[in-house]
Amino acid sequence: MRDDLKSVFKSEVTALRAYSLEPHETSIKINQNENPWETPKQIKDETLRQFENYKWSRYPPFISSDLEGRLAQFAGWTPDGVLAGNGSNELIQALLMVTMSAGKSVLISEPTFTLYRQIATILGGEVQSVRMTTDFRFDTEAIVDRIKRDDPQVVIVCSPNNPTGTRIPDSDLRRILDAASGLVVVDEAYHEFSEQTVVPLLRDFDNLVVLRTFSKAMALAALRVGYLLSAPDCVVEIRKALLPYNLNLFSQTAARVALDSYATELRPLVNNILSERQRVFNEIDQLNGFYPVVSTANFMIVRSELDPRVVFEHLLSRDILIRDVSRYPMLEKYFRISVGTPMENDLLLQGLRELAS
Amino acid sequence: MRDDLKSVFKSEVTALRAYSLEPHETSIKINQNENPWETPKQIKDETLRQFENYKWSRYPPFISSDLEGRLAQFAGWTPDGVLAGNGSNELIQALLMVTMSAGKSVLISEPTFTLYRQIATILGGEVQSVRMTTDFRFDTEAIVDRIKRDDPQVVIVCSPNNPTGTRIPDSDLRRILDAASGLVVVDEAYHEFSEQTVVPLLRDFDNLVVLRTFSKAMALAALRVGYLLSAPDCVVEIRKALLPYNLNLFSQTAARVALDSYATELRPLVNNILSERQRVFNEIDQLNGFYPVVSTANFMIVRSELDPRVVFEHLLSRDILIRDVSRYPMLEKYFRISVGTPMENDLLLQGLRELAS
Repeated sequence: MRDDLKSVFKSEVTALRAYSLEPHETSIKINQNENPWETPKQIKDETLRQFENYKWSRYPPFISSDLEGRLAQFAGWTPDGVLAGNGSNELIQALLMVTMSAGKSVLISEPTFTLYRQIATILGGEVQSVRMTTDFRFDTEAIVDRIKRDDPQVVIVCSPNNPTGTRIPDSDLRRILDAASGLVVVDEAYHEFSEQTVVPLLRDFDNLVVLRTFSKAMALAALRVGYLLSAPDCVVEIRKALLPYNLNLFSQTAARVALDSYATELRPLVNNILSERQRVFNEIDQLNGFYPVVSTANFMIVRSELDPRVVFEHLLSRDILIRDVSRYPMLEKYFRISVGTPMENDLLLQGLRELAS
Repeated sequence: MRDDLKSVFKSEVTALRAYSLEPHETSIKINQNENPWETPKQIKDETLRQFENYKWSRYPPFISSDLEGRLAQFAGWTPDGVLAGNGSNELIQALLMVTMSAGKSVLISEPTFTLYRQIATILGGEVQSVRMTTDFRFDTEAIVDRIKRDDPQVVIVCSPNNPTGTRIPDSDLRRILDAASGLVVVDEAYHEFSEQTVVPLLRDFDNLVVLRTFSKAMALAALRVGYLLSAPDCVVEIRKALLPYNLNLFSQTAARVALDSYATELRPLVNNILSERQRVFNEIDQLNGFYPVVSTANFMIVRSELDPRVVFEHLLSRDILIRDVSRYPMLEKYFRISVGTPMENDLLLQGLRELAS
């Protein structure tokens, strides 16, 4: 690019490497923590049936209030404390857009989902980071100390944490919420697999923001639906950074249908993933040179005596795609696997056995 | 909100009124410049047929490269110079996110689409504004003067302009592109109705950014698809602010199908709108007290000797929803109407005649 044109872009942006994923096509894809089961046919059929009769040439409702009302009911929170978004990423972006600028800061606990740092950096905010403990618990002591020292506008806690699978205890979260004068975001993308939620804390803390997604347990990753729960006053400010009609009408429709069918269609898939998670953990735990970390999500990290890149390539040769997380802080010796279907897990375990022997 | 919590949000955000629309339900909705015809059945059927067989539980491709390739072909530009987005609003937001911060500025020509100002303000940029001429042409002289004086990072030209319907001549746009050291964004949301495009200028100007949408002529407003065309170097930087998987797979599918069917299914609807635009203009032009402005889009503004609010309320009582634009700069005496179907236009004209007599 011409130097004078390049100078139009913010220096923190031109300095940034784009977030990307290696493009690999495999039969078994356990690199993105998706629901390994296809969306239940009943949900697909009902969504298509409803949507066929809608007017596609017209804008969706200005605010997805119908969907937001149902989300409120589903989550057990007030409708004016809900925002629906084009994936939960859009909602964390909106939240950072209304809080970050030069001189403002966000505090994260690492290793964690890389997008928090990327978005805050583009928006000109400063990213402060605390390491997890060596056994991948949240270092609440260190987080509270940093809050007292730096007073960040936003603290982000991914719980269960991607990629470690560990969850913050409610008592620790309360300490953080008490210490913080800014917003505390709990990204609950994987909460269904922990069978716990921090939503009840919303009643006690008006600075708590909970993020959720339809891309994992809800089996709708292709449709990009997320939601945010917080005090109505906060929702008013965050909504200002959301674009009108941010969530298309097809995805709104699918999300409504999925909510209605959660107990009968989706919860059984979650249960299957939970029992498979236990089986996969137990079996890897018995292999020489592989040390899985107990997880409350639908994935786990595994410490490997072999270079994780070697494990990645070996499994790729067996048509299995896992996530190489060795460039994350603290995870030089780890890889991450999503829990797949029983058959997928069998093939993964077979591939790992070939390396362990 | 507690004062200490309020201070977490940027002051430019808390000071802002949220962008919103009055919620009115009417049979005839000519307030949002949508395609008045429902999406052709062939496009709906083919989209549903294809999408039923996709995996909804899996993320879409990391980059919508299949769709972006087709958009490149359709628009006559290079694939690495294309970005697909969740509506063109998302793309202007991403562009402003990588260019705006305190001390940076965007130049707009007003009256225009209000979202440019809203997004730039939230991102901490300064908004400079030049008025159109009294007959609603772009005041190119004034724009070039302001560029020379203030050197804005971004200039935004909505052409055909919402809400005036006027288009900037290519020769004027070239003068702006020559004068600007920053990016010049041409929002071509309505270009199909002008039967002209600035895309050929992309070959001569690496600082030109063209925005387009599927919400108007392409009849897919419910699905939120837009795209951006620019020099590949600029696309690399703007893409950094787009979230991964920003465009859901259903909307990608519908957009591909609509592109394939444009000539046979959508272009005839555009032609119908063009002839109706002429008829509606001519008929309003003959009414006492109403003075329509010649438009190159699928809408027009009309100067009214009656208070525009009175016109709005009268038509609302006839189950017709128009846009009251009287709070836009220069438009105190105007209302805006989208061109509807022939039957919708007949009812609009009848409603106006009741006021003119």
